[in-house]
Amino acid sequence: MTAKADTRLRRIPDKGSKDEQLARDIIDEARICHVGFTVDEQPYVVPMAIARDGDRILLHGSVVSRLITNLAGGLPCCVTVTHLDGLVYARSAFNSSMNYRSLMVFGSAEIIADPEEKERGLDILVEHLLPGRLSELRKSTRKELNATTLLSLPLATFSIKVGEGPPDDTKSDVDTPIWAGVVPLKMQQGEPQAAPDMVSGTPLPAYLRKSD
Amino acid sequence: MTAKADTRLRRIPDKGSKDEQLARDIIDEARICHVGFTVDEQPYVVPMAIARDGDRILLHGSVVSRLITNLAGGLPCCVTVTHLDGLVYARSAFNSSMNYRSLMVFGSAEIIADPEEKERGLDILVEHLLPGRLSELRKSTRKELNATTLLSLPLATFSIKVGEGPPDDTKSDVDTPIWAGVVPLKMQQGEPQAAPDMVSGTPLPAYLRKSD
Repeated sequence: MTAKADTRLRRIPDKGSKDEQLARDIIDEARICHVGFTVDEQPYVVPMAIARDGDRILLHGSVVSRLITNLAGGLPCCVTVTHLDGLVYARSAFNSSMNYRSLMVFGSAEIIADPEEKERGLDILVEHLLPGRLSELRKSTRKELNATTLLSLPLATFSIKVGEGPPDDTKSDVDTPIWAGVVPLKMQQGEPQAAPDMVSGTPLPAYLRKSD
Repeated sequence: MTAKADTRLRRIPDKGSKDEQLARDIIDEARICHVGFTVDEQPYVVPMAIARDGDRILLHGSVVSRLITNLAGGLPCCVTVTHLDGLVYARSAFNSSMNYRSLMVFGSAEIIADPEEKERGLDILVEHLLPGRLSELRKSTRKELNATTLLSLPLATFSIKVGEGPPDDTKSDVDTPIWAGVVPLKMQQGEPQAAPDMVSGTPLPAYLRKSD
């Protein structure tokens, strides 16, 4: 963790926390991140799928994508993962806010070239994004593997910002008789929609059946 | 819309679309965006609240935040809004993907300094983030308004990427008898949690009661 990233971006000390486990948890709960990089002085922020392999982040994409080529070239990047956890209804507009957990990871990505390591890394991505799915799928072909670039970025230089808890109102506002509190937000999965060309009668797999 | 932003970032032509109304809709459905900018060659990607006022994006923050100071100084930035709409279960790892709508807006932010315009802009933000709330809240004080910087960024140079629909499998995979399709994802609001210091007996406002 660099002091640079920290001191630049955190203004309210008690809203920041440095915690490797929290960083891992934020990634493990996420399916996408936002990757920032700069080309010709223009910043770009692009959503990408994310997974974690120990203390490194895995990203992937097509070998011919400009985004992947840029990142694989070792451009400095910032990978940000944000969970929006709730809406905070304070007694004033000024103190109204949102609860969230946000992780920023700074560094440069590297290509995972070793074929076995690459296959293992792509499997980690599939199993993270679609839990339970991997064992059902055929193995990727050599051609498919060659068409994909797998990148890793160390989870080493990072900064975490967390907003949590009830509204923190100005003292003189607390007795205002309006509702105050938090409305939690959560990503929910809807009803699975079978592909029109699915072999008819194929059952919904256990990993997609709702437990509730 | 610049050709530059477009051609650089879109590889699959039919995954891209240019549509001002779609851009507006993507913002209107979002509460947060990810803002990218570069300082000393290091890219940063920071989550921020977002709202739309006609054809400009509104962002805000504390006057003393380094982030806001950087953006207000006119640094080139990229504001990205992403909705993750579904998980796409194809018959192969290679064709598995996610459905999403992502908007990238390029430009430089400007401070909205005029007091009336600023108050109006901050009201738009509150009403967008917490619909129905504004009419219940007291007016912001001069001190509160002075402690906040409101920024605008024109919705002029942008790029949209959309992934949608059922899995697009390799022909030879379609007859594999495994489930294939899409699991939709949606952000859901949970049960409102009253603040511990709320004036007791204060009813839940209509805008927070579930309609279903």
